[in-house]
Amino acid sequence: MMEPIDLNKLLLLSHDEFCRRVEKIRVCMSEAGMSAVLINDNANTYYLTGRVFSGYVYIPQHGEVIFFVKRPVKLEGDCVVYIRKPEEITETLGLNVPENIGLELDITPYSAVERQKKIFPGSEIKNASPVMRKARSQKTAEEIDKIRRSGIKHVHVYSRIPYLYNEGMTDMELQVEIEKTSRLEGCLGQFRISGDSMELYMGNVLVGENADAPSPYDFAMGGAGLDPSLPVGANDTEIKPGNTVMIDMNGNYNGYMTDMTRVYALGKIDPLALKAHQCSIDIHRALVDMMKPGTEAKVLYERAEAMVKERGLQDYYMGHRQHAGFIGHGVGIEINELPVIAPRSRDIIAEGNVIALEPKFVIPHVGAVGIENTYAVYADRVECLTPAPEAISYFMI
Amino acid sequence: MMEPIDLNKLLLLSHDEFCRRVEKIRVCMSEAGMSAVLINDNANTYYLTGRVFSGYVYIPQHGEVIFFVKRPVKLEGDCVVYIRKPEEITETLGLNVPENIGLELDITPYSAVERQKKIFPGSEIKNASPVMRKARSQKTAEEIDKIRRSGIKHVHVYSRIPYLYNEGMTDMELQVEIEKTSRLEGCLGQFRISGDSMELYMGNVLVGENADAPSPYDFAMGGAGLDPSLPVGANDTEIKPGNTVMIDMNGNYNGYMTDMTRVYALGKIDPLALKAHQCSIDIHRALVDMMKPGTEAKVLYERAEAMVKERGLQDYYMGHRQHAGFIGHGVGIEINELPVIAPRSRDIIAEGNVIALEPKFVIPHVGAVGIENTYAVYADRVECLTPAPEAISYFMI
Repeated sequence: MMEPIDLNKLLLLSHDEFCRRVEKIRVCMSEAGMSAVLINDNANTYYLTGRVFSGYVYIPQHGEVIFFVKRPVKLEGDCVVYIRKPEEITETLGLNVPENIGLELDITPYSAVERQKKIFPGSEIKNASPVMRKARSQKTAEEIDKIRRSGIKHVHVYSRIPYLYNEGMTDMELQVEIEKTSRLEGCLGQFRISGDSMELYMGNVLVGENADAPSPYDFAMGGAGLDPSLPVGANDTEIKPGNTVMIDMNGNYNGYMTDMTRVYALGKIDPLALKAHQCSIDIHRALVDMMKPGTEAKVLYERAEAMVKERGLQDYYMGHRQHAGFIGHGVGIEINELPVIAPRSRDIIAEGNVIALEPKFVIPHVGAVGIENTYAVYADRVECLTPAPEAISYFMI
Repeated sequence: MMEPIDLNKLLLLSHDEFCRRVEKIRVCMSEAGMSAVLINDNANTYYLTGRVFSGYVYIPQHGEVIFFVKRPVKLEGDCVVYIRKPEEITETLGLNVPENIGLELDITPYSAVERQKKIFPGSEIKNASPVMRKARSQKTAEEIDKIRRSGIKHVHVYSRIPYLYNEGMTDMELQVEIEKTSRLEGCLGQFRISGDSMELYMGNVLVGENADAPSPYDFAMGGAGLDPSLPVGANDTEIKPGNTVMIDMNGNYNGYMTDMTRVYALGKIDPLALKAHQCSIDIHRALVDMMKPGTEAKVLYERAEAMVKERGLQDYYMGHRQHAGFIGHGVGIEINELPVIAPRSRDIIAEGNVIALEPKFVIPHVGAVGIENTYAVYADRVECLTPAPEAISYFMI
């Protein structure tokens, strides 16, 4: 249960937790030689305050954090300044102009950055996006606890999936039942993705050959979708005996999400699919053993690829007609956080990382197999935050 | 029914329709003195091709449109060039360097624009966003037909709402039933908003006092939401006699959407609420009569405001604790298109505009009232694309 919160207080985090997050950011700022950052992105303001609001958070390397609020009205707290437009930030800062200023250059539109630059006419402009991505990739215990609590609900919803199937259902009909079950369990629905080039509604249900339909989006698996305006996921395929159903649904129950995939089937499936599914499970085991602070992310990718080749499954790995370029990613407030588990990734596994691993396969005429779990990395161990049965489940009919 | 489409062809529009849209863009480019534009945003590439893909569309003022595709694999058609990174665009353009180039500066992140600029080292950089917004605001007959078809399904879903209510339901429980009904009717779910500062999942169900909870987002109405990570909409309020239930759910059934709001209630409600609801309906009638090509958008806003003041309802208009600054907006591929019906809008109503009007009220202790319809503007008339009964409906129990 969530404790009752005073929604008039701007800061919905405890003071200690707020300080921990600011400190993480300041360490990354220091590494990047940054005097101050100005934060505007919803995911980043939520990280810093525990709420989404319209406005800016100004974090100097030294001195007090200032919250510039446009909306909603009547938020209270220390260092809360109401503004109507970003230019008013100048008045509050006065002569405390930073030597350089980090702006969210990888997310904020060009025109908005040009406007923000004018607030700091004498300051060198730097990119705060890598700083924020790195700080957010090393979760606090409180953040991991939120993800763990999303995971519990996520697992609970998945446990009901075998009972949601009815004979003759299409992928969409099943997906709608899972959406409803998720929502009644408290799923917020919002699927936060950094940047606006990737789009997905509530998750992905892939049946049979549709798993191999190439998608324009940078997801591990594709699917044709219902309409070319949203070419991903379910496409009204009927679930038939011998096909697999890969389910990768939204796990956002409190602002932090888990990412989890499981496979279901109607009756017997091809032994090749079972072999590939087992390979995915075995890759998880091997990678979890390697997922220690200090390990290079690309080494995990290479280990997985070697296991796939040993078993002669490379033709099916991460898609058949189009292959995804990564097998894992950080997850938290957004679905595409650091680190990225990819062949040319420069990321290093760190304590506090929360990582979704998703080695998957597409077997022609059968469908997609493999699992995805979300893991928290600690100094001395790894915790699975999506502890659901991993074998292929069979629909109850 | 949608005709079967060949998904391997890049262009999913007819040649004529494609030419009409390119011509609209070129007229706007010419007004802005733009030699070429480079399009990357999903909504804009969908507008130009009838599909979302990962890549760029290059439109010179004179000469052929070129499609640079990163994903998905194997799209076919004239002037389709596969690239891995934007820098490869240079090779194809060769010596055909435009004098100036319009980039989507209001949408594309700063870092991405800096990278795109390097493709055109000798060209002046201009802002293509206003050009694309204006071209897209003047819909073709084919676009209006898609919106009309979304409207038919949207109206059908709303007609079932009175039967979805069960005694003791909360706003969320009702919303989940409407979500399911919408999805089974073919709703794609995706709620496209230009920019990433506004967030909403599938729509907004506001019961009683929650209608007045201020939201950080720039929607006409707010709501506290279930969680501070997504502070908008339903907040688990039980639907009680005397309260109104305002329903503003996703109308995207084919890539183009209608925007429609209706009000429901459980038993008798305060006469003040009925009076305000009737005022909203009357504003619609008055504004539809004025919504002719050439009319200034702000004049519509002023007329509505005058009607509200005549009836002494200004305290409740567009929110009670926090007031929205607009009463209408263009709608199509995205929910926040041109024109904007606001006091300082410089937009002029034009043929082909599709406009959602939403004069709404919040009545203390009762909830939100008022309706929203989507209208198409023609040379000589206005068509309502959301023709559902406008009076407050009562739940069946």
